[in-house]
Amino acid sequence: MSKKNLRVSDLGEKKLIERIIETSKDFEFNNDKNLNSYIGDDAALIDFNNNLTNEKNYLVATTDLLIQKHHFPLQMSFFQMGWKAVTVNVSDIAAMGAKPVGILISLAIPPNLALESFDEIICGILKACNYYKIPLIGGDTNEDDEIIISGTALGKIEQSLAKKKFGFKFGDKIAITGQLGLAALGFELLKEENKKIIEKSIENKKISREIVNLSIGAALNPKARLNEGIILSKIASSATDITDGLASELYELFNANKNFNKNSNLGIRIYEDKIANEPLFKEIYNLSKILNKDIFDLIFHIGEDFELLFTFSNDNENSIIDELSKKLNFIIIGEINNYNRVEIEYSDGKVQKLSSKGYEHLSND
Amino acid sequence: MSKKNLRVSDLGEKKLIERIIETSKDFEFNNDKNLNSYIGDDAALIDFNNNLTNEKNYLVATTDLLIQKHHFPLQMSFFQMGWKAVTVNVSDIAAMGAKPVGILISLAIPPNLALESFDEIICGILKACNYYKIPLIGGDTNEDDEIIISGTALGKIEQSLAKKKFGFKFGDKIAITGQLGLAALGFELLKEENKKIIEKSIENKKISREIVNLSIGAALNPKARLNEGIILSKIASSATDITDGLASELYELFNANKNFNKNSNLGIRIYEDKIANEPLFKEIYNLSKILNKDIFDLIFHIGEDFELLFTFSNDNENSIIDELSKKLNFIIIGEINNYNRVEIEYSDGKVQKLSSKGYEHLSND
Repeated sequence: MSKKNLRVSDLGEKKLIERIIETSKDFEFNNDKNLNSYIGDDAALIDFNNNLTNEKNYLVATTDLLIQKHHFPLQMSFFQMGWKAVTVNVSDIAAMGAKPVGILISLAIPPNLALESFDEIICGILKACNYYKIPLIGGDTNEDDEIIISGTALGKIEQSLAKKKFGFKFGDKIAITGQLGLAALGFELLKEENKKIIEKSIENKKISREIVNLSIGAALNPKARLNEGIILSKIASSATDITDGLASELYELFNANKNFNKNSNLGIRIYEDKIANEPLFKEIYNLSKILNKDIFDLIFHIGEDFELLFTFSNDNENSIIDELSKKLNFIIIGEINNYNRVEIEYSDGKVQKLSSKGYEHLSND
Repeated sequence: MSKKNLRVSDLGEKKLIERIIETSKDFEFNNDKNLNSYIGDDAALIDFNNNLTNEKNYLVATTDLLIQKHHFPLQMSFFQMGWKAVTVNVSDIAAMGAKPVGILISLAIPPNLALESFDEIICGILKACNYYKIPLIGGDTNEDDEIIISGTALGKIEQSLAKKKFGFKFGDKIAITGQLGLAALGFELLKEENKKIIEKSIENKKISREIVNLSIGAALNPKARLNEGIILSKIASSATDITDGLASELYELFNANKNFNKNSNLGIRIYEDKIANEPLFKEIYNLSKILNKDIFDLIFHIGEDFELLFTFSNDNENSIIDELSKKLNFIIIGEINNYNRVEIEYSDGKVQKLSSKGYEHLSND
């Protein structure tokens, strides 16, 4: 296909972002010298210090746009839409280890939206702001055929503590803050065609109502791991939030490191067994079977869990793990090696390159 | 109509924003104590200082969402859409008198958009970033049926210099940084039905091609008054940018003052004659006649000029005016009185309350 006929869907979101970064290098005020973070990271880091003082903080800024037909399932209430818009943005602040400073929300709503529904969206936004202790500091309202909520969250962090997608070293452990796959299961459970089989399975005690509710809650009422991020800022060597599936995020770390150390051979190995170690795993495995889904496919390639993926130094393994365990729930799922790829060791001992397929907007694939 | 049946269009944008502010007071982390600015101001002011230091800056943050079918006329190029999205956000930074720190842009685009058109949007964004010397620091891309561009601009200003919508005193002069009405005329000129009459009027030398091009340029390639804002930060007693028509913005100043001083009798008087003093006025008056429009209606009630409206102290009138004149173009259009309303003195000497009608989204009116 000639370049002239290319559509944006021929490239997909990640290639489009790379294209923006490449183009920006031609423009004086948009080259790297102004940036303290790699543009593919969860949030931008801005030097906000007066050179005369010793204060060394970054202003952390991140933005995410949610569009009704793409991001809000039909079963999602107006309240939950508002909640989610705050959560996705706060999650990026959490991934940097930062403390929230404020959030701006731009809304577009249909003119014929019932005022009660509008109030419900606002309530969802404000309840989430309260939950994360992040004040709503500004915004904009507009008219459109569908609901659009664009958020920009701002945070603050000591420069030395900011958690980027790179920074890990050989031997570092890789961990996650909670059970993955719950939100993906939740989205499956919301589908009309699955309702009957689920009710029957609960009746027959094949699964518990609790795990069904937990999964639906993860899909409709996601929580950002803000406190976990702040704790990890003092311990982790890198971090990101898991929005597009674990595989995609592992490649984000791998590629971020490569971007800064072209000759680095650092690779990532994760273990199927360790992922299956989560206390809830057996239950969600059963649930996925009933829904005719591969639980690992959901964990690796479907996102929206908003758990944090992080690495930490293994120098003094046990004491760090003990210390961390007192402060937050996490499981170690792998480590940094020097095999220059992202790989998975299956339960049977076989090791393979992990497929990078994750959810990507604007892609034909 | 009962509350139950109310639609958002029954309230309109301003009442909806008031509703958000009212609701936010019920939520601990969203009440005024965290805010250094009135939430109806052009941008939020965030205290970003370490208490141990003497640095007293505000982080300034503002967001604006543009939707293709509402904000981008058919004749607007993809480049101009990108340019406009940066400009509307930078204009709010300018209105606070702040220096730009960075901008985040969230984009939604149709998957079948030609890659060349995507590149053109990005080029418009980056060219505008260069023009305003504001680095593009982050963003998000999504898929939608139409183009949506949401921007969040961040700035920085010494706390004592931040220009709010209130702060003016009795006797202060009211001024604007340039000719109003140009953009509104430009949008009229873009209409197919006006093409013939305009070409004929240029031929007959009733109007110049220059004023036609200037008007269309103001509509399609708006410029934010960033440098003017920075100059005014040291001189003005209040400022805002003129996005929704002069009348609407004058009421914004009037109401912002009331919000902080309930018992204040401060009012605003502007003079039709003085507005007609602008060097370009005669030409745009002629142009509006040809288009069968009332030029004052365009100036007062149609927006998108992105000029700044500001007040300054009259204590030492001539020396301040002389000083300002050396640094920027402006005309004085009125003054602050104590008649507790926004009024206009017409050319014939009659004084009337100014109609507050301005462009408002989401309104039935």
